[in-house]
Amino acid sequence: MSSDVDEYLKAITQCKGVDKIIIMSGDGFPIKTTVVNEDITQYTYTFWHLAKKVQQLVKTIDINDDVRLVRFRSKKNETLMALDNQYVMIIIQNPKVE
Amino acid sequence: MSSDVDEYLKAITQCKGVDKIIIMSGDGFPIKTTVVNEDITQYTYTFWHLAKKVQQLVKTIDINDDVRLVRFRSKKNETLMALDNQYVMIIIQNPKVE
Repeated sequence: MSSDVDEYLKAITQCKGVDKIIIMSGDGFPIKTTVVNEDITQYTYTFWHLAKKVQQLVKTIDINDDVRLVRFRSKKNETLMALDNQYVMIIIQNPKVE
Repeated sequence: MSSDVDEYLKAITQCKGVDKIIIMSGDGFPIKTTVVNEDITQYTYTFWHLAKKVQQLVKTIDINDDVRLVRFRSKKNETLMALDNQYVMIIIQNPKVE
């Protein structure tokens, strides 16, 4: 994966509140991540299944539709998951950081 | 369920682009909806499972965290799912309506 991606990762990492970034393939294999000292496969496994579940749901509503972005807010974090056919990028951030 | 909810539903329905509204219990049973002539249980079944999957994922990241809002954007629609312990409200809208 090109150095462009590294540049993007570096830029996103410097945004306020960004905690974790994971890039995985459309099949759920981790490609790049800022997560250290944790079992990355636990994240990719769970996120991959969520991506499939959301895609399935979007197709239930309209078979010709495709999900592009999933965003969920919890008490502590905000998670963004951008999807296309080849890659899934996940950003976990703390929305309360000023 | 009180007439307050009916008022809220009516107000949300009149917002531009809002297509479908579904309120279901925390167990996935439909309570109120604007969906007509369609099998509502197909929606509630799929949304309920998604809600559980997101909650599970949030707990994977932090066991003490709880999901509050899920939002996903597809090519055609935008879907919002607000969760608390008792109810789940789902709004499906067309974001391109001016």
